[in-house]
Amino acid sequence: MTEYSLFTSESVSEGHPDKIADQISDAILDSILAEDPRARVACETMVKTGVAIISGEISTNAWVDLESIVRGVINDIGYTSSDVGFDGATCSVINIIGKQSPEINQGVDRENLEEQGAGDQGLMFGYASDETDVLMPAPITYAHRLVERQSKVRRDGTLDWLRPDAKSQVTLRYGADGRPEAIDAVVLSTQHNPEISLADLREAVIEEIIKPVLPAEWLSAETKYFINPTGKFVIGGPVGDCGLTGRKIIVDSYGGMARHGGGAFSGKDPSKVDRSAAYAGRWVAKNIVAAGLASRCEIQVSYAIGEAQPTSISLNTFGTETVPHEKIVAAVREVFDLRPFAIIRDLDLLHPIYRPTASYGHFGREPYALAGATAFSWEKTDKAEALKAAMT
Amino acid sequence: MTEYSLFTSESVSEGHPDKIADQISDAILDSILAEDPRARVACETMVKTGVAIISGEISTNAWVDLESIVRGVINDIGYTSSDVGFDGATCSVINIIGKQSPEINQGVDRENLEEQGAGDQGLMFGYASDETDVLMPAPITYAHRLVERQSKVRRDGTLDWLRPDAKSQVTLRYGADGRPEAIDAVVLSTQHNPEISLADLREAVIEEIIKPVLPAEWLSAETKYFINPTGKFVIGGPVGDCGLTGRKIIVDSYGGMARHGGGAFSGKDPSKVDRSAAYAGRWVAKNIVAAGLASRCEIQVSYAIGEAQPTSISLNTFGTETVPHEKIVAAVREVFDLRPFAIIRDLDLLHPIYRPTASYGHFGREPYALAGATAFSWEKTDKAEALKAAMT
Ligand SMILES: C[S@@+](CC[C@H](N)C(=O)[O-])C[C@H]1O[C@@H](n2cnc3c(N)ncnc32)[C@H](O)[C@@H]1O
Ligand SMILES: C[S@@+](CC[C@H](N)C(=O)[O-])C[C@H]1O[C@@H](n2cnc3c(N)ncnc32)[C@H](O)[C@@H]1O
Repeated sequence: MTEYSLFTSESVSEGHPDKIADQISDAILDSILAEDPRARVACETMVKTGVAIISGEISTNAWVDLESIVRGVINDIGYTSSDVGFDGATCSVINIIGKQSPEINQGVDRENLEEQGAGDQGLMFGYASDETDVLMPAPITYAHRLVERQSKVRRDGTLDWLRPDAKSQVTLRYGADGRPEAIDAVVLSTQHNPEISLADLREAVIEEIIKPVLPAEWLSAETKYFINPTGKFVIGGPVGDCGLTGRKIIVDSYGGMARHGGGAFSGKDPSKVDRSAAYAGRWVAKNIVAAGLASRCEIQVSYAIGEAQPTSISLNTFGTETVPHEKIVAAVREVFDLRPFAIIRDLDLLHPIYRPTASYGHFGREPYALAGATAFSWEKTDKAEALKAAMT
Repeated sequence: MTEYSLFTSESVSEGHPDKIADQISDAILDSILAEDPRARVACETMVKTGVAIISGEISTNAWVDLESIVRGVINDIGYTSSDVGFDGATCSVINIIGKQSPEINQGVDRENLEEQGAGDQGLMFGYASDETDVLMPAPITYAHRLVERQSKVRRDGTLDWLRPDAKSQVTLRYGADGRPEAIDAVVLSTQHNPEISLADLREAVIEEIIKPVLPAEWLSAETKYFINPTGKFVIGGPVGDCGLTGRKIIVDSYGGMARHGGGAFSGKDPSKVDRSAAYAGRWVAKNIVAAGLASRCEIQVSYAIGEAQPTSISLNTFGTETVPHEKIVAAVREVFDLRPFAIIRDLDLLHPIYRPTASYGHFGREPYALAGATAFSWEKTDKAEALKAAMT
């Protein structure tokens, strides 16, 4: 499902510094939305050796103990001692959060609630393809599964010398029919404790992380493995690399297979179209593919700050459409309402649902990967029938 | 040159908070590279009300007065008083920079210098199309020119009530031939001082910023203008919005028209392939289009940390190639050496050249837009002849 014969995507674990920042930002968002669904939240986090700084703009009447939330997220990830490089109990937590500018707010709030303006200008893409059962590109799907597996075998004690920070990368080879055919290269770097030897680590990573996750028929003698290629990765987390919210936007979305508008997700309440319209874009694209109207679909929407209606809606089906392109465009306009108010209502976004989105991808996640949480509303294919009906 | 009939891109001015952060990170990088070309720099910045926090990992023997550099950048942009919301002279500057992890360093440095390993894993894209004379997509090109013009008329006093923070967005309509045909919508929000009325501001923005920049033949009675749609934008800069390095990666590159690997540029020395390989990707793609081998070209490269050779190189010419695709792929491998050492050598990247890249785009910039600086080496079409020669 691509014009490329080779395509590479990467992912990172929940212990990667940028992902620590994303999870803190979304945990703060959740804690506020739980008490005050009308709050305006834009929370940015920086983590570095021994410190987590939370910043951004929040307007709410909820009272939340932000320091405890920050410490809780860091501890939950597994950064619980100076030995592993970061300790949620003893690190410094600095809060420089301000309020939403009243001038932005006046552009967003409307007397007629339905006419709520977009919280910012911007462009967002949504994407789906029938390349995998979750209607996601295969390279990012398998890159996520590798680091999810790293987390699982770390947490359940299978490989008790693993530490939280890890990165994966998968290079897929596509056949002439545009279908994934083989894995050309796998990169996996994982933080570890100092006792494990490099040889043992590499063998364990292949046996316990790579083989259980990657389809055997795609692996061969030609597959290249790069496992902890630096040789040593004991220092990890914020000591090795400063982490910031919103710095893994390609990991968060489609692994580079789809275009990206540039807006980050974590820490933003859904009045920010960077988040809500990108979720809606996924929902639209996935329903089009689920309805069989195209086997690959990308949608771009854009907004002006303070305006409810998108400034543009535009669709790309890459020649895979099974009905005329204009009919799909017309059906999208008929079936989906892409004003911020309508997106928030239809996807039911004013709930504390965001922290689980902040690692292993915002899209293509079936409940399997959600540890108890329900599926994300933007993954529903509840509009496929209406789209089909609009074709007749 | 796109499958979309409408395409939207945005840009932001040098006074946008994320761009303040990018410019601080790159000014710090420049100041260190000027003294120590072998330094390792990964500098991340956060700006919020009254404070600039610099962080990341730096290993160098240069001695640099970082505080002065931070204050200088903020003042140069025009944030010189509490009246405009931020003051380089009196804001707080907090430094939490650490050193590069020796474990990463051991993966990157090699006895044989040519075999220098990539400073991280990752995927990067390069892109070019013959849609504009600078071989860039038109939407991002004009979005940049709007905010560059905002800066010019602010600085030269034409509109002396302008303040530094601004955003632009352009929705282009493409014809059936894939060529830009009309401008459907323009969004421009600019910070201003409280004395100017909204009506006067809107008229001045149309006359002094929009009309001088956008091609008249693309504007019509159908063009929609959204100028300061919130109605008021006196509060701007870091007070209105927390700024972080690397949060405008689509503005920095191709405005969403090309794919993106996710890596940010600013603050990173060129041992980081996120930056150097993305620059090289632009160079490769631009030379292919300049050589007439395709009218549109996107290249993906990927790396494993510590490895010199890319883990994948892959090319997409969207059916616009004038010679067989495999011949272009073979020529790229013959003409370009994409190991980090070779990129740094061929594009001459170990110099303090980065601060001007940190606003108005890293690509498609001819000297016109560079206020005295020379053109960026990755914009040279010096390999077009060699590529053509490889076809015979
Ligand atoms: C290589 S660091 C980025 C570069 C870093 N800022 C520097 O100054 O060199 C990016 C990520 O790689 C991973 N990493 C850290 N140390 C590593 C090591 N020794 N070997 C492999 N990967 C490592 C972590 O996930 C980290 O967040
Ligand atoms: C709208 S803000 C992002 C949202 C913000 N973090 C919040 O809490 O609402 C994004 C950018 O919009 C611009 N901006 C700030 N105030 C504005 C206003 N009153 N009207 C229009 N644009 C504004 C600035 O360039 C700012 O960096």
